[in-house]
Amino acid sequence: MIERAQRAIAECRRIATMSEEPGRSTRRFLTLPMHDVHALLTDRMSALGITVHIDAMGNLRGLWRPPHAGKKRLLLGSHIDTVPDAGAFDGVLGVTLELEWVELARELNLPLAIELIAFSEEEGVRYGVPFLGSRAVTGTFDKSLLAREDSNGVRMEDAIRAFGLDPVRIDEAALDQNVLGFVEIHIEQGPVLEAENLQLAVVEGIVGQTRMAFRFTGHANHAGTTPMHLRHDALTTAAEWICAVETTAKDEAGLVATVGKLDLKPNAGNVIPGQVDLSLDVRHMKDSTRTHWVRHLISEAQLAAHKRGVKVEWDLKLDQPAVEMDPFLSDQLALALDDAGFPVKRMPSGAGHDAMVMAARMPTAMLFLRSPGGISHHPDEAVREEDVEAALHVGRKFLERLAAGLG
Amino acid sequence: MIERAQRAIAECRRIATMSEEPGRSTRRFLTLPMHDVHALLTDRMSALGITVHIDAMGNLRGLWRPPHAGKKRLLLGSHIDTVPDAGAFDGVLGVTLELEWVELARELNLPLAIELIAFSEEEGVRYGVPFLGSRAVTGTFDKSLLAREDSNGVRMEDAIRAFGLDPVRIDEAALDQNVLGFVEIHIEQGPVLEAENLQLAVVEGIVGQTRMAFRFTGHANHAGTTPMHLRHDALTTAAEWICAVETTAKDEAGLVATVGKLDLKPNAGNVIPGQVDLSLDVRHMKDSTRTHWVRHLISEAQLAAHKRGVKVEWDLKLDQPAVEMDPFLSDQLALALDDAGFPVKRMPSGAGHDAMVMAARMPTAMLFLRSPGGISHHPDEAVREEDVEAALHVGRKFLERLAAGLG
Repeated sequence: MIERAQRAIAECRRIATMSEEPGRSTRRFLTLPMHDVHALLTDRMSALGITVHIDAMGNLRGLWRPPHAGKKRLLLGSHIDTVPDAGAFDGVLGVTLELEWVELARELNLPLAIELIAFSEEEGVRYGVPFLGSRAVTGTFDKSLLAREDSNGVRMEDAIRAFGLDPVRIDEAALDQNVLGFVEIHIEQGPVLEAENLQLAVVEGIVGQTRMAFRFTGHANHAGTTPMHLRHDALTTAAEWICAVETTAKDEAGLVATVGKLDLKPNAGNVIPGQVDLSLDVRHMKDSTRTHWVRHLISEAQLAAHKRGVKVEWDLKLDQPAVEMDPFLSDQLALALDDAGFPVKRMPSGAGHDAMVMAARMPTAMLFLRSPGGISHHPDEAVREEDVEAALHVGRKFLERLAAGLG
Repeated sequence: MIERAQRAIAECRRIATMSEEPGRSTRRFLTLPMHDVHALLTDRMSALGITVHIDAMGNLRGLWRPPHAGKKRLLLGSHIDTVPDAGAFDGVLGVTLELEWVELARELNLPLAIELIAFSEEEGVRYGVPFLGSRAVTGTFDKSLLAREDSNGVRMEDAIRAFGLDPVRIDEAALDQNVLGFVEIHIEQGPVLEAENLQLAVVEGIVGQTRMAFRFTGHANHAGTTPMHLRHDALTTAAEWICAVETTAKDEAGLVATVGKLDLKPNAGNVIPGQVDLSLDVRHMKDSTRTHWVRHLISEAQLAAHKRGVKVEWDLKLDQPAVEMDPFLSDQLALALDDAGFPVKRMPSGAGHDAMVMAARMPTAMLFLRSPGGISHHPDEAVREEDVEAALHVGRKFLERLAAGLG
């Protein structure tokens, strides 16, 4: 399997050079380098007897159907778009690994039809909306988005046409009923597996997420002439609240809460901050736990503000429920891990994935590979050869189980 | 006195319209509207028999010398430059009020020579260095500054020439030995007098000031995929420290400490902050108290950083000792307050003033007027007519005392 692992990694490295920008790996939805990725994948697949087509949303779809396979097919997939200045593995490794899985199924002569989907868009960079590829595949794409413009004023429908596709035919990208389920392979994009010295994990689900904006408004007075007891400092208010956010999340298992964005006015060393705008991002696998702590953090913000005669306002930007992975398909992955001799780690995904969109439509499971240093969305993003090899061993066991279950 | 108070205020309002920018009051060092201010003040003074000249640093200097006066003269002064989008009273009210004081001395036929100085520069806006006017008057102007450029690339010496002055003659702006002392009138620029329902205060001194830059460096990881216990969050570190800054200053009488500037990277809602840069501004009337608490805050920063595996660095930007006002001259002001029927409030100035520069050279005292809302450096900056009137009553008593003391 080591040669397969090396090849899957080498292909990621090669695809990373297919970029909109010299010296950086950036490949947004239906930009020119996407043609090169399609060509590379099409060559590989065609040589294996996989039937390839590109749907109207730009998803590359390869169908492997052995003569003795049943009507229903397994879907494998991940995305081939990137964030700006990306690493080589986020999304793309899923596709190159899944292609190796299809080859394994072919070599083992498994009576299993597989459709491999390289989603055209997951990151949401070009049009500010993520999951365009999987939304089209699940028939949940909102066509009003076609009028949206990118930063150069190119409407989405024109981008689709410029790529040689027909936006009128997007409905045809939607799947038929003959699917067994969907499996996505992805790098973890976090430090958990590395911290626990594990290679792989079965994803339990994708955490629910609350995104909010908070504003503390005090008074911007002179830092030298305003005694402490006459201040209405928006930043000290925010600081007390940020500490409460951290403490709250540390005290509840599985909860993460982050203030990632903070802007203050007037932002001058000798002026007491009059206004602070902050983001809050709260995630947990259990929606009731998440919403409970969000309410708690709102009251903490009110408390910190009240103490200092500061006004607080907040705005709910996103309230996205958690998505559970399919128990049966996830158990098959877990058993395959065990079959292949790996410890069975289950964990939630803290980030969104195409699997989240697919899960609304069909049984869905997800396999994580360890992310060295927990790094993603960065040129230093990496993957270990032995972890890719492990994912191949697990894939073989998983596909054998699935084929046997169908037989 | 009410007409005098109204006139002093009206002149401030008129001078505020002499601006570099339409609709906003902005008058930096030796910009064109400074000519208009000089013309207005020269007209007023000349009509009173005050001899006016403009020194090579652009300070307007009016000498009132009655025939029976002694050799030594009292200096009165404040500045006529402003910050961008300023109010009407910071600096300028000192000058218009002091001109009324000279008129009072004249009317009362006091045997007291007075030089009134309208300093050309105090705010430090145009060349990034404050107190240019009073530095020239005290003979402490650093001539290497003449080569400094403003934001349009105009060297200071060229700005002086363009105003019709000769930078070679700056030394001639320095005072001779025949001075009794210096008194500056200024708005408080803070909320203390208003909070205590007082109109005026005698300034005890100008607080010492420490300015520092702090940097916390953690790791910028994914807000969804990085559990709390594996984070190195630069912002939660900074937040804990900002709370310590606030608590520390609240617990020590007369201490103010402010984090006014905060910039974080990458500043995205779904990324744990990897780096936070902050300013620290600490002020106190007693230098040993100030430096003690600055050391304490450095150790608080180290503690907050150590807890989270975050690095902290700091840089001392300014360490300016406190400046005491002259006890005798300040007592004369305090007695004048009492003579005029006002309670004697003494307080430090949390902001820098020309009086700080002058105090290094001669006995110096300062009188504060209440700032409504504590507002300054803002178009809403205001002053109450009755407070200006109070300052006129105090001025009369003060000048009478001084003249009597000389007699």
